[in-house]
Amino acid sequence: MILALAGGVGGAKLAHGLARVLDPSGLVIAVNTADDFRHLGLHISPDLDSVMYKLAGLNDEVRGWGQRDETWQFMEMLGRLGGEDWFNLGDRDLAIHMVRTRRLMAGESLTEATAGLCRTLGIEHVIAPMSDDPVATMIETDDGVLPFQHWFVRLRCEPPVCGVSFEGAAEARPSPPVAAALARDDLEAIVLCPSNPFVSIDPVAAVPGIGEALAGRKVPLVAVSPIIGGAAVKGPAADMMAQRGLPVSPVGVARYYDGRIDGLVIDEADAKLAADVEREGVKTLVTATLMKTADDEARLAEETLAFACRLSG
Amino acid sequence: MILALAGGVGGAKLAHGLARVLDPSGLVIAVNTADDFRHLGLHISPDLDSVMYKLAGLNDEVRGWGQRDETWQFMEMLGRLGGEDWFNLGDRDLAIHMVRTRRLMAGESLTEATAGLCRTLGIEHVIAPMSDDPVATMIETDDGVLPFQHWFVRLRCEPPVCGVSFEGAAEARPSPPVAAALARDDLEAIVLCPSNPFVSIDPVAAVPGIGEALAGRKVPLVAVSPIIGGAAVKGPAADMMAQRGLPVSPVGVARYYDGRIDGLVIDEADAKLAADVEREGVKTLVTATLMKTADDEARLAEETLAFACRLSG
Repeated sequence: MILALAGGVGGAKLAHGLARVLDPSGLVIAVNTADDFRHLGLHISPDLDSVMYKLAGLNDEVRGWGQRDETWQFMEMLGRLGGEDWFNLGDRDLAIHMVRTRRLMAGESLTEATAGLCRTLGIEHVIAPMSDDPVATMIETDDGVLPFQHWFVRLRCEPPVCGVSFEGAAEARPSPPVAAALARDDLEAIVLCPSNPFVSIDPVAAVPGIGEALAGRKVPLVAVSPIIGGAAVKGPAADMMAQRGLPVSPVGVARYYDGRIDGLVIDEADAKLAADVEREGVKTLVTATLMKTADDEARLAEETLAFACRLSG
Repeated sequence: MILALAGGVGGAKLAHGLARVLDPSGLVIAVNTADDFRHLGLHISPDLDSVMYKLAGLNDEVRGWGQRDETWQFMEMLGRLGGEDWFNLGDRDLAIHMVRTRRLMAGESLTEATAGLCRTLGIEHVIAPMSDDPVATMIETDDGVLPFQHWFVRLRCEPPVCGVSFEGAAEARPSPPVAAALARDDLEAIVLCPSNPFVSIDPVAAVPGIGEALAGRKVPLVAVSPIIGGAAVKGPAADMMAQRGLPVSPVGVARYYDGRIDGLVIDEADAKLAADVEREGVKTLVTATLMKTADDEARLAEETLAFACRLSG
């Protein structure tokens, strides 16, 4: 039984790989919800959507986010009407936000709403929010503290980041599926998907019930590096590492996690850094980590699980 | 200065014709809002939308309702997710409901929200809801009392109608533009567009401040018959007349309005009924009333205004 922590698109890819090689009963995918926000009266959960779209086969591989066969008629008209059009909502995408919002308004928890959406989308594996309680990633910049999506989408990650905090995290509890997974006797490993450490993985760990369980783990915790060859595959992770004075490399990832991980899967492009990563006290697996196809995802998932297995042995 | 009362698609056509032949300062279009309802958390105003889309040139002439170049991706996904998909919402259409809902939630009245939407759509003429207060058309059937859209859309007008009532009408006040238009010294005529008398015109007149002003009018009130050649151009008007034991003809329209109108514009197809209409105490104008083109709309508007002018003379 495996618990995977995932954020956005890279996380969704490895989560998909894990879902291909593990039975539904053998995997819980705990997803960052600190990027969630309310917009136009809708509850938007970008990371949950990325994972759900991927596992349902609805994701757009070319654009890299959102749904395939998507259209933008709503946004076009919204802009014309002077509405808030800085956050791009596809026409198909809107339906998932609408159904989630209606379920939450009807009294369901985010866990229940997500399970309901997964059921209708034919997803058999458990995709769970990290928490049913509101947690909000706040980005500290020279211009002040900004909610994550305002910084990430509206301002295109442009204001340099002085710090990151997770509003509400201290009071948040793990969602029931995540709490149950962490407490299971047959938990074999925890996998950090190749997601941004600062804004995708950290917020999950900032939920006390999760962070404490991860720190007190009795099973290997392995991460897949989101940095390959000195750059992030997608998103602001590389800039955020540089701003913190960390090397933009798997060494920086290992140093940042500072004992919080047991193993790091790094790309062949960074093979020569393996010894440096190990000097940070982290075991390494060197393999091809760039996931371009579903087979890449499944192979990386299998290798990551085998690596974790070796670490526990 | 002309006040026009309008409901759905037929009303929108004549309203468009009036807007083509009258200056923005010379026309107020009072629109039925008793079909309005909340759906998926959105405030939907079907008749206001029909008039706005038409005057903005956004309407779909072929389908007859909604926006041109519309797509249905949201609905398709909503259905797949088990959402409420009985009321068809186009992707572009959704934006107008969203912006209206946001404006109302921000504290604007429906009049203000509508004016804001008209401004962004480049509509210069005044389109106003009949009232800013909630009024709901309720359809009495053998199966019980149904909100209008449930009967009209969900049940496709199938349950026979025993009666119609307008919930909230007794407490509703005319919207400020409509109240102002009714009170103006230079009001020259009131035009009932070719809309369903029972569910498009009656609810407007059911607002006491409007109904009393119409009854105490000092200017001609002329209607354009929604019935041509024994049938309604669109919608359930003909069935509703038959269910009430009225002849499905301009005679039935005149009889139903029972002194509430001074003149009725009837189609050439019904020319032989002109004398019968006049026996109901209503003056008639016989002309081509089926509006297929913008020129038809403008011509019918001009003829209707000239007819009203003759009645006041």
